[in-house]
Amino acid sequence: MERRQPIPVEEAVKKVYQFQKHGQVEWVPLKNSLGRWIAEDILADHDVPAFDRSPYDGFALRAEDTKDASSEHPVEFEIIDHIGAGIVSAKTIGPFQAIRIMTGAKIPKGANVVIMLELTKTFEKDGKLMMSLKRPLKKGDNISRQGEETLKGKVMIKKGSKVTPGVTAILATFGYAVVPVVKKPVIGIISTGTELLQVSDAMVDGKIRNSNLSMVYAQVLEAGGEPLDLGGVSDDFDQSYEAVKAALSKVDMLITTGGVSVGDFDFLPAIYEKLGADVLFNKVAMRPGSVTTVTALPNGQLLYGLSGNPAACFVGFELFVKPIIYKWCLKENPFPVFAEAKLTHDFPKANPFTRFVRASLDFAGSQLSVTPTGLDKSSAVTSIAHADCFIVLPGGTRGFSAGDQVSVLLFHHEGGAPCWMTN
Amino acid sequence: MERRQPIPVEEAVKKVYQFQKHGQVEWVPLKNSLGRWIAEDILADHDVPAFDRSPYDGFALRAEDTKDASSEHPVEFEIIDHIGAGIVSAKTIGPFQAIRIMTGAKIPKGANVVIMLELTKTFEKDGKLMMSLKRPLKKGDNISRQGEETLKGKVMIKKGSKVTPGVTAILATFGYAVVPVVKKPVIGIISTGTELLQVSDAMVDGKIRNSNLSMVYAQVLEAGGEPLDLGGVSDDFDQSYEAVKAALSKVDMLITTGGVSVGDFDFLPAIYEKLGADVLFNKVAMRPGSVTTVTALPNGQLLYGLSGNPAACFVGFELFVKPIIYKWCLKENPFPVFAEAKLTHDFPKANPFTRFVRASLDFAGSQLSVTPTGLDKSSAVTSIAHADCFIVLPGGTRGFSAGDQVSVLLFHHEGGAPCWMTN
Repeated sequence: MERRQPIPVEEAVKKVYQFQKHGQVEWVPLKNSLGRWIAEDILADHDVPAFDRSPYDGFALRAEDTKDASSEHPVEFEIIDHIGAGIVSAKTIGPFQAIRIMTGAKIPKGANVVIMLELTKTFEKDGKLMMSLKRPLKKGDNISRQGEETLKGKVMIKKGSKVTPGVTAILATFGYAVVPVVKKPVIGIISTGTELLQVSDAMVDGKIRNSNLSMVYAQVLEAGGEPLDLGGVSDDFDQSYEAVKAALSKVDMLITTGGVSVGDFDFLPAIYEKLGADVLFNKVAMRPGSVTTVTALPNGQLLYGLSGNPAACFVGFELFVKPIIYKWCLKENPFPVFAEAKLTHDFPKANPFTRFVRASLDFAGSQLSVTPTGLDKSSAVTSIAHADCFIVLPGGTRGFSAGDQVSVLLFHHEGGAPCWMTN
Repeated sequence: MERRQPIPVEEAVKKVYQFQKHGQVEWVPLKNSLGRWIAEDILADHDVPAFDRSPYDGFALRAEDTKDASSEHPVEFEIIDHIGAGIVSAKTIGPFQAIRIMTGAKIPKGANVVIMLELTKTFEKDGKLMMSLKRPLKKGDNISRQGEETLKGKVMIKKGSKVTPGVTAILATFGYAVVPVVKKPVIGIISTGTELLQVSDAMVDGKIRNSNLSMVYAQVLEAGGEPLDLGGVSDDFDQSYEAVKAALSKVDMLITTGGVSVGDFDFLPAIYEKLGADVLFNKVAMRPGSVTTVTALPNGQLLYGLSGNPAACFVGFELFVKPIIYKWCLKENPFPVFAEAKLTHDFPKANPFTRFVRASLDFAGSQLSVTPTGLDKSSAVTSIAHADCFIVLPGGTRGFSAGDQVSVLLFHHEGGAPCWMTN
């Protein structure tokens, strides 16, 4: 049997990362941009505020007319207009005139101060609408100045940012009815295995339904790629080779599941050889997924050979595919975030390889704690579904106990890290 | 001016929650189900494993034939077949016969044990393919038993779960080519304000582009609702009333932005009155968003009057709309998760109202820390875009200092909580 030399996870991650590529820009309507990645810096096309405006409901007037105001001697103003946000008064304020103004409205010509409604009294006098106030005001008080939040030309959102609801607010503010986003990488998926039935098939003796294809399809979608379902192939060299070869011109990267181990019907290694692909590694010092293989064609196109075991397939994707998709999308921090958390369960057995244990993180209190989602054999099937992180147990000669602080890889954390860094 | 009585945030959340409704089921193709919410319990349609299978590459044989095996006296077997996963051998194993079997393949008839490839020696003898082993085996060793992971009929995914990549693997395994998901609630969005331009409009003096509509549209999408853009209306009672009234028959819930305060051009309160809507509250003891208003029609339809201020609008949605969308989608824990984290900055000013400060959570190390994303005035526009949580500062007579432990509301956390519970 072939003996493969395992390499450490971190080294494997770095090897793959050398093949990072960046996607091109495409423009999509703002409403379709949620979850996409910004391809060009987003600039302020105007100052914010775009004009001097009122931060309160109140009256705009001239500060110099208030200098003699006091409780004993209220000063009176004629109200010459009444404007809400979005309305620009056609009038110019003269001595002892005021304009009733609502939050967000532009400061009228002639005015240089705003007083809050609550500090004034409104009344009628000689058929005119009047207002009085009892305190002197300082020029410029209660005016939100043009550009005080943001100046025109400033970078508001850096390229490589994901479009969230908050980002859409900025895009809308600055007129991005169409948004420059990164064209998604097309990622082909082929599952190999004579044992695989289609999802819609009835069960057949000795076979299982293909779950990896749907799972990886969803992982690609979630990470921001465009999955291309290229179906399943039997464990047959020629069929598999043709499927892989035909896929290459259609995709930016190709993922296969299964067929990468050293079993009698594992044909991917021979396919990589025939394609002239450079094997970056074919064994990683990790569990599950030690057979994970990544190769690169002379043109730099990555071929991922993920394990046929669903849990191993999932881990392989998170570690080696996701950061490459993120980097394609210009994400500044494409690597997973690690936290430290307290183990709630023992892992008495030592393992020479780094283990990635599907788990669930608990935020209760100030101390994070983490619990495996596959505590018994019967939950093997569901442990991926219920996990939001991996407990990362370094390989070595000892087990781990409840209460130990361990590293946790958060695979749903949006922020990301600039490089692969366990705690 | 109208005096409104503020109610505590928790009370406001509970009032709205009394109007929760549940969505109906609809069936969608598995590939379109990512991010949707499961509407019916997902059952195992077969045992897992569906048949006794081999967990290793090795040989299947009869344990009783190995009882005399030892290093000195290897026992020899004739290899009568060679099968990979997905293949059922047509042969039945007799005395001193073995079948070469790969991981995942069905245990052949007659066999009751598997031995790993590494513990055997393969050779030829008299033109026959032979295998020898040097140790006695126990019946049942190295066989993954039918049903040992999961029995047919077991609930694999509970209704109200979100479809993640891990969930798709389970759906695929159990034949869900179409998936029962919750029909999304249709949520209408109307923005009010004479000052609002469309995103594609050039800037006009005194006006701003409408950012709330795009932001709320994205928040609805992100939470799992179906947003319906009903456009913007001016600050005009009749126009606003007609727009709201016309929307009611098209939506499950309606969100308006702006027009809910006590300004001269805030017409939503009068519209609610004319519609006969029950005002659950029109002032909440929180900043921003104290003017947030929620009302319910006699048929139980919720009308949300969110603030026109983008930051307040965002908070109002997260607190009062999102849990209702989640509950509609049958999510078990529809409320936000709170964590505790260490403040990195001072908030010297006291505030009588609970503050929700847009912030970013840092996982570095075992102690969470949290930093506001809007530290200076100039970042007011971008602070929503860069936030992943709110610092929740309880109202009262004191400020807060760097180093204080504070509650943090994680608005991107998938897990959720069963009720509103700050730490």
